[in-house]
Amino acid sequence: MLENLKVGILGGGQLGGMLIRHAVDFGLSISVLDKDANAPCARYTNSFFLGDPKSYDDVLAFGKGLDVITIEMEAVNIDALLELEQQGVKVCPSPSIIKTIQDKYTQKQFLLSHNIPVVPGIAVDGKEDLLQLENKLPGCLKKRRDGYDGYGVMVLKSAADIEKAFDAPSVLEELVDIKHEIAVIVGRNEHGEIKCYDAVKMIFSGEKFVLEFQEAPAQLETNILQEATKLAEKIADALQLVGILAVEMFVTKDNQVIVNELAPRPHNSGHHTIEASTTSQYEQLLRAILGLPLGDTTLHLPSLMMNILETEGLSTNRQEKFKQVLSIPGAHIHWYGKKGNRLGRKVGHITITDTTMDSIVAKAETIRKILN
Amino acid sequence: MLENLKVGILGGGQLGGMLIRHAVDFGLSISVLDKDANAPCARYTNSFFLGDPKSYDDVLAFGKGLDVITIEMEAVNIDALLELEQQGVKVCPSPSIIKTIQDKYTQKQFLLSHNIPVVPGIAVDGKEDLLQLENKLPGCLKKRRDGYDGYGVMVLKSAADIEKAFDAPSVLEELVDIKHEIAVIVGRNEHGEIKCYDAVKMIFSGEKFVLEFQEAPAQLETNILQEATKLAEKIADALQLVGILAVEMFVTKDNQVIVNELAPRPHNSGHHTIEASTTSQYEQLLRAILGLPLGDTTLHLPSLMMNILETEGLSTNRQEKFKQVLSIPGAHIHWYGKKGNRLGRKVGHITITDTTMDSIVAKAETIRKILN
Repeated sequence: MLENLKVGILGGGQLGGMLIRHAVDFGLSISVLDKDANAPCARYTNSFFLGDPKSYDDVLAFGKGLDVITIEMEAVNIDALLELEQQGVKVCPSPSIIKTIQDKYTQKQFLLSHNIPVVPGIAVDGKEDLLQLENKLPGCLKKRRDGYDGYGVMVLKSAADIEKAFDAPSVLEELVDIKHEIAVIVGRNEHGEIKCYDAVKMIFSGEKFVLEFQEAPAQLETNILQEATKLAEKIADALQLVGILAVEMFVTKDNQVIVNELAPRPHNSGHHTIEASTTSQYEQLLRAILGLPLGDTTLHLPSLMMNILETEGLSTNRQEKFKQVLSIPGAHIHWYGKKGNRLGRKVGHITITDTTMDSIVAKAETIRKILN
Repeated sequence: MLENLKVGILGGGQLGGMLIRHAVDFGLSISVLDKDANAPCARYTNSFFLGDPKSYDDVLAFGKGLDVITIEMEAVNIDALLELEQQGVKVCPSPSIIKTIQDKYTQKQFLLSHNIPVVPGIAVDGKEDLLQLENKLPGCLKKRRDGYDGYGVMVLKSAADIEKAFDAPSVLEELVDIKHEIAVIVGRNEHGEIKCYDAVKMIFSGEKFVLEFQEAPAQLETNILQEATKLAEKIADALQLVGILAVEMFVTKDNQVIVNELAPRPHNSGHHTIEASTTSQYEQLLRAILGLPLGDTTLHLPSLMMNILETEGLSTNRQEKFKQVLSIPGAHIHWYGKKGNRLGRKVGHITITDTTMDSIVAKAETIRKILN
């Protein structure tokens, strides 16, 4: 049955690791392609391939003989996936979806063409272009491709900032008057079944575009949450998605919900579903790509998720700090086991579950103090 | 940190698979020794060793260079573990605990020496001995070693049954007037911290000693549950356990709680802790053997666990049956992905969680009909 299926993941980071965690429940065999032999996934499969998910040859060689391929990152080679699809390998999400989404500008155009509200933005080829667009500043400049975790995003306040801007194909977005940032994870299978998780609210640290806390369910007005769910479902349908999709959204000061970005894969904003939901986002992805019924997305506990970033503070007495965190009831550590100590890198996350959000927030404050 | 620790498991079955599932959360590297190249664990590690956990040479070769070794089965080579311990490898639970428990008679003697109530039993070397013990019948005959899942256990009603009895070292136990069978999983770390899970109640199918349903928490009188917890804690302390221990107990018709059997490893009776408890038994084992604080054992949802046995019924339209089960909210399938189709074998389990036990039982009945 399921154990005879050969499932491949492009990318071997922590998201892939958590996907394997849930693949155990179905007895699945998982192959992984990553260009780092020390990628977190490498430890958890007997079928690890060293190679670049962006390389046509590597992806093609990896995919031959697999039954299903999915992704844990968008920066993958589309042509190879199209070729594999031709050869009968099931690719979920479809290469065309990944292609549309991996470029922030074509993503935006797609959403606009389906009447989904987005942040208005202009495509620019590089710095040169920006010099003609001084009157559009201030704005938010995002690289069209390969941005992640705050890399590839910067605010240009005025013409003076153009100097240090990316000199790469980018999107210059209007600055939005943001009240909240939220996200909804939606799953859809090939039978058109769609299920959303409750929206989460994200709190970012000021300058760095790096997520600090994430609260689930988001404590917001019902009509806003309904609008967010409606948008996520509409996008999954428009894409004819088979898989899961994270829809990051802004709630503006005048209570409009507009889409910021999409990610057609497991996502930060669904980490808490491991502990707090009946079905985790990882299991939901597996169900979707295997043609199984989608799982119940009920949140049975409130939760708060915080990323662990590599910092100077963290590197001192690390083991002792972890013991302190682990002694807090309901604090679930996910340590990614990454090699090396690059400062600022996401090295883990902690999900706190409890019966009330107040007690969760108190525990989060305690944990923040412990880790720093 | 944790990712640099080398942890080994003796045995590569489903319990080991679920242990790896939770090792992902700490970024641990897990090595596995099993004599079956197709063991469920083999898929989920890049460090699988083909060899027999009962062989001195295999265990010694496997263990060299590891930091910590644990078990997912009792039938392992003790001498090799003692030698590894000498060489500085941390073995949890300790070889002496495994040795005491892997023989059902020495296990019983140990418990008696600590004033723990057990089922009275006599050691017999084989059939010959039984002929002298006709006056002790009816009784329950259990092989001293290597019994599991109903294998190695039989009821001898009268002298006429001796003919078909095991001709191996066994224990002849008195038949107990059983009202309920329950189990408590207890964890203990090297600092002496002890935590119990709520007792579960097990319902076995008549003849086969095979678990059919398991309800958590057990719906029983508080004083019985307290007594069960007290016994489990006392045993963990008496053993100076570092790890987890399943304590299977009988509640007699006159409401006495007596110990049936011990298992110093993850156990069936803790499967539900994956979905229903704050900390799963698998994470608890990892915390214990890594010297970390034990996790909160609170059950946050009631649950029912049922094993999936390979049957004629199951083999027809298997995929369709699984889809039906997966469409029931709160039904969590764990499919072990075992190769081959030996009838009667445990090939998976399903944990059902919901807000009330009534609705859980209704779902369990639906699932039983689907699978048969």
